[in-house]
Amino acid sequence: MNRANHLASRSPLHDFLAPRSVAVVGASQDPTKRGYKAMVGLVKQGFRGAIYPINPKAEQVMGAKAYASLGELPGPADLALICTPATTVPGLIRECGAAGVKGAVILASGFGETGEAGAALEAELLAVAREAGVRLIGPNTSGVFNLHHNLNLLALDNVKPGGVGIVSQSGNMLLSLALEAQHNGRVGFSTYVGPGNQTDIGFADYLRYLGEDAHTQVATLYVEGFQDGRHFLEVAREVTAAKPVVVYKSGATEAGQRSASSHTGALAGSYAMTVDLLRQAGVSVVQYSDEILPVAEGLELLQKARGKRVAVLADGGGQATIAADRLAEAGLTLATLAETTRARLAEILFPQASLANPVDVAGSSDADPLVLARCMEILAEDAGVDSVFLVGMFGGYSIRFADSLLGDEMRGAESMIELARRVDKPLVVYSLYAPIKPPALRRLHEAGLPVYYSIEHAVRALAALGERGAYLAADHARPEALARLPDPEAAFARARAEGRDLLEPEAKALLAEHGIRVPEERLVRDAAELAEVAAHFGTRSLAMKVVSKDILHKSDAGGVRLDLVGEAALVEAHDAILASCRAYAPEAEIEGVLVTPMAAKGVEVIIGVSRDPIFGPVLMFGLGGIFVEILEDVAFRAIPLSRHDARSMVAQIKAKKLFEGVRGGAAIDQAALVELLLRISQLVEAYPEIQELDLNPVIAYASGYAVVDARVIVARDGADASTDSTTRTEENLA
Amino acid sequence: MNRANHLASRSPLHDFLAPRSVAVVGASQDPTKRGYKAMVGLVKQGFRGAIYPINPKAEQVMGAKAYASLGELPGPADLALICTPATTVPGLIRECGAAGVKGAVILASGFGETGEAGAALEAELLAVAREAGVRLIGPNTSGVFNLHHNLNLLALDNVKPGGVGIVSQSGNMLLSLALEAQHNGRVGFSTYVGPGNQTDIGFADYLRYLGEDAHTQVATLYVEGFQDGRHFLEVAREVTAAKPVVVYKSGATEAGQRSASSHTGALAGSYAMTVDLLRQAGVSVVQYSDEILPVAEGLELLQKARGKRVAVLADGGGQATIAADRLAEAGLTLATLAETTRARLAEILFPQASLANPVDVAGSSDADPLVLARCMEILAEDAGVDSVFLVGMFGGYSIRFADSLLGDEMRGAESMIELARRVDKPLVVYSLYAPIKPPALRRLHEAGLPVYYSIEHAVRALAALGERGAYLAADHARPEALARLPDPEAAFARARAEGRDLLEPEAKALLAEHGIRVPEERLVRDAAELAEVAAHFGTRSLAMKVVSKDILHKSDAGGVRLDLVGEAALVEAHDAILASCRAYAPEAEIEGVLVTPMAAKGVEVIIGVSRDPIFGPVLMFGLGGIFVEILEDVAFRAIPLSRHDARSMVAQIKAKKLFEGVRGGAAIDQAALVELLLRISQLVEAYPEIQELDLNPVIAYASGYAVVDARVIVARDGADASTDSTTRTEENLA
Repeated sequence: MNRANHLASRSPLHDFLAPRSVAVVGASQDPTKRGYKAMVGLVKQGFRGAIYPINPKAEQVMGAKAYASLGELPGPADLALICTPATTVPGLIRECGAAGVKGAVILASGFGETGEAGAALEAELLAVAREAGVRLIGPNTSGVFNLHHNLNLLALDNVKPGGVGIVSQSGNMLLSLALEAQHNGRVGFSTYVGPGNQTDIGFADYLRYLGEDAHTQVATLYVEGFQDGRHFLEVAREVTAAKPVVVYKSGATEAGQRSASSHTGALAGSYAMTVDLLRQAGVSVVQYSDEILPVAEGLELLQKARGKRVAVLADGGGQATIAADRLAEAGLTLATLAETTRARLAEILFPQASLANPVDVAGSSDADPLVLARCMEILAEDAGVDSVFLVGMFGGYSIRFADSLLGDEMRGAESMIELARRVDKPLVVYSLYAPIKPPALRRLHEAGLPVYYSIEHAVRALAALGERGAYLAADHARPEALARLPDPEAAFARARAEGRDLLEPEAKALLAEHGIRVPEERLVRDAAELAEVAAHFGTRSLAMKVVSKDILHKSDAGGVRLDLVGEAALVEAHDAILASCRAYAPEAEIEGVLVTPMAAKGVEVIIGVSRDPIFGPVLMFGLGGIFVEILEDVAFRAIPLSRHDARSMVAQIKAKKLFEGVRGGAAIDQAALVELLLRISQLVEAYPEIQELDLNPVIAYASGYAVVDARVIVARDGADASTDSTTRTEENLA
Repeated sequence: MNRANHLASRSPLHDFLAPRSVAVVGASQDPTKRGYKAMVGLVKQGFRGAIYPINPKAEQVMGAKAYASLGELPGPADLALICTPATTVPGLIRECGAAGVKGAVILASGFGETGEAGAALEAELLAVAREAGVRLIGPNTSGVFNLHHNLNLLALDNVKPGGVGIVSQSGNMLLSLALEAQHNGRVGFSTYVGPGNQTDIGFADYLRYLGEDAHTQVATLYVEGFQDGRHFLEVAREVTAAKPVVVYKSGATEAGQRSASSHTGALAGSYAMTVDLLRQAGVSVVQYSDEILPVAEGLELLQKARGKRVAVLADGGGQATIAADRLAEAGLTLATLAETTRARLAEILFPQASLANPVDVAGSSDADPLVLARCMEILAEDAGVDSVFLVGMFGGYSIRFADSLLGDEMRGAESMIELARRVDKPLVVYSLYAPIKPPALRRLHEAGLPVYYSIEHAVRALAALGERGAYLAADHARPEALARLPDPEAAFARARAEGRDLLEPEAKALLAEHGIRVPEERLVRDAAELAEVAAHFGTRSLAMKVVSKDILHKSDAGGVRLDLVGEAALVEAHDAILASCRAYAPEAEIEGVLVTPMAAKGVEVIIGVSRDPIFGPVLMFGLGGIFVEILEDVAFRAIPLSRHDARSMVAQIKAKKLFEGVRGGAAIDQAALVELLLRISQLVEAYPEIQELDLNPVIAYASGYAVVDARVIVARDGADASTDSTTRTEENLA
């Protein structure tokens, strides 16, 4: 099945995440058992399909007739919940297969996350499941719910059906979101899945399901580690085009990564890289756990993502300033207000009001909170404003100033609601009175306007909206892979036959044949060639580097000499390099030396490609030298890159001021760098033989660049590094 | 009055912030007026002193006899609240003086924050106040309260007396903290002051008052801009030694700084510098507005600040991981648990529990929440643990699992409370059930254990505790200023007489005379000296630089030549430098050239001193070149520095890995850098003639350093840059 068809087909997960019948293996009357909780969730919360408790010691559980085993069920069970210990699970899955169960939710821990014996049990479990034709959720999962289907195997109280779908490797995180939603938010939930160890089904497939699920307006994921990263990125690209996807990725630090891997056995991977790749796929990544719900709520309520120009409307200068700081930090901008907007504001505000953005009404609304609604309207009607952020006391005027203001506040709320329906721009409210839920804020809430408790959280939601708007507006088309050419193919074949990587001249030839400009350079094998090369370059200042498949670290071997002028210097350097390399590595086969003009000074950058075990081929770009080594100021994108990706990775570099020229220097040719990044991406697509690629350094100039060194590691024969690592999961779902 | 005595004396603010009698100018029966609100706050909330409404049109206001003017009061009013417009204020302050009012709170805006006319009115106001002997709070203030004195001029409902004192340039921020405290926190408040435009009294004096106020356990400040920065730092040093001081400084970004200055007319200053200086004085700086109360609450409840080694105890791996990530990001460490601790934990936990830190009980507490209390005890008893952070569901076991667990949860809470009393270590609880306040969490709250709603906020509080612990443990003694020496004094005198700055040789001599090692260098004025210098240095590679008071940018003038070997090269360079400089600046007086051996390669750092208008002399340290220009990777400390300050600023540099050796290089001599920073601080103290000082670059080596260039800008005669800018405020308070 090819990928496009595969993604277009309907996820098989619907069959058991919206089941007609559920079996609970280990159903119990004992309130401390999960088998009791699950029955409560099914029976008391009104699951409308068939419920089959499995318990050999009971006649019935919670009024439902109990069965001794899955073999005795009177009809098929689409879904089975397994509440029994780890060692019982493989046998039960076999029984599930025989009973026609499509999916099984396995709560038990004690598998791969606990060590070798557990890993063996997990492998057995997967094999049994494949043979039995049963899909697995978990093991080591906290369970599932589908509230629009009255299926609540966690028996959570007080969660209401709504638009937020959740996949979380932490059950506590789900509980936390549910309690927060109950008390601060207005969001409800669609489907929840705890993927646990992802033994069978991983995040990609769950996301695909949420993408297809009509009840889910925003997919929200807490991820400790992906097993199916590349597949996930492809699914995310498709889903984010239609609905927002929010991801909190744990393991931002080494301490967190150690903790995460002990929890679900998943490798955490590089946090910075994962975040870059997720964003490349349009995912809204949140950094702090307490921002997950505020951001999901904002994205659910305010689907009309636009741009990053925010108008702040405040009734206090202090909080206006806090909002301005946070917006700037989040990469949003304070919209420049039109003259007509300022004039309209001036008409209704006191003279001491600040009409620049942030707009501070400076007391104008104290006796008339409707003024705020009018200002919001004026701001929202400014074509240069993408969203309006109201900051301050709204909802609390009748409490703070006079009861008599309540009517005006309610009218103000209605006016804002009407405005939100009319204008296609997000309106976001922070009120310091939110904790006590006064009537005007309750009204805004009911009508679907988000009301935040914290300026910081409101800004995170605005930032997610702005970023999503920018993402959707960009062109994400990817250039085609390059056509393979005979000479590079032959070079790869030779390298493989000889069990080596590409030599530097071969690597540069590969680049040159595909339109990447490399400096003129000459391979010198003997004294005659040296004389010829010396004559060719004349009085130019040259660099000489050893060429040997056996010498990776040329400088360490004394294999590099710089600033050579004239034949005598070349001869001396040639002798010295050969002597030094022979001393350094007596067994090394030395092909010769490479002679090339010294590169002019410019800005050193590096471009690297590696094959990540989780995410497949990834391109890295950064400033060279200590910027990479000390500051880790680099950007990552999954290959293939779009032109937008290439541009955005150059723009992402923290020290990018260097590209704009420092100390009177000229700005560098960023367009040429963008083309180079794209070309490398296309090259890696065309040649799965490339295991790793390093251009380090590339020197960027006011016009063009110079690839000073190129290294290509060749994938071992028969182990082509494929750009498509989705095979396993596709097979699973076939 | 000298500074030590000044600080030891009791703040005069007590006289009117805990007044025996209050006059309300503009007292009103109209519920929309501030003069009504203030009367409500006094009368209904039980102020026990005399209340004098001033209103020529009323017989009485809210039951209190009204007076037509301040002149008619039957007795002295310690405090006057002025609710009338800006233009009336100077006249009223004159009346206040005549009526014996000690302090006046001025609500009106329309002063310096609005422009020139307002600034003139503000200057008039200050002059009148000085003459009348009346101290001013505001103008443009939201008011004051002193809840332990039943004085609540803001008439805030639902604030309870407690230990958090607040000074906030945003009235909305106070309201926000009050509402948050009412709903999430257990904190109460002592005194609130809105300093407004700080026309008379600034943050330093308010902080001093809160430091002295026995009811205030933690001082919490929202600051848009300091007027009295240096004085504030000195007061903060004294106060933080005894009680925590929390500051949120607005204007972290340019957008925020523009917004802040339009609000109170205060200059925001460099945010990064302000934060560094505040931390140097022991202040707990919070970055986000929604962290102010959580941090203040943590510091109030858990005065026993210790160190940074945290033990995390979790009942879910996911939230354990989030906690680990946040702790590491905040500069805290996961404590390494002793073998005995792990053994004790293993005795009471399931085999699948994780005994490394974070400790994940992995279900061990599901049926027995008392297990968590026992684990907390074991962790708190580990000598390598400074604080214990409980993360997860505690308080919600009886809700999530079984009602029958409530008793165990309550016993668990009692056990934690007992533990907190017994061990001298902070115990901090995050519970996902906090939003619904279950009984066990209410019990913890009542007993003074902080219970957080967000892992992120809990970690901020732990970080503030850890940082405060480290601050209190450090030695903050400051070395004495250096003694002034005759030669540098003469050099300064000459420079002043000639209206110029120090020449490079003079600057280096200043350094050398005070024990700072400068490279050997020779001033060359003519050909004879050049020959002698050439002979002296022999075949060493030399640098030559022009010396002229009129040429500041030596490189731009062609006044620098490097890598010169031998007399011929020196002669050629000398001629070229003179020719180039004469072409560049035909009028320049050229003293000669400086010849010095080329500095060996090392790590370039820069040290700079400037006189900040708000904070006085400040020392900056950073990595040289693009690190300063592009990345702004620098640290600031107010002069004088302690040795701890010097060490901490080296440790603060983000790229400090460079100091530890990269690419096989040796680590640099950080101790020598620390001594150099200290010595510069002492030097600047000794010579108020120094307006600015720049050592750029200093090259740091594995042993020692080389000061390659030194520049000293001389304060103009009669305008010595004093290290003590507190004069104005001291005068105010005399």
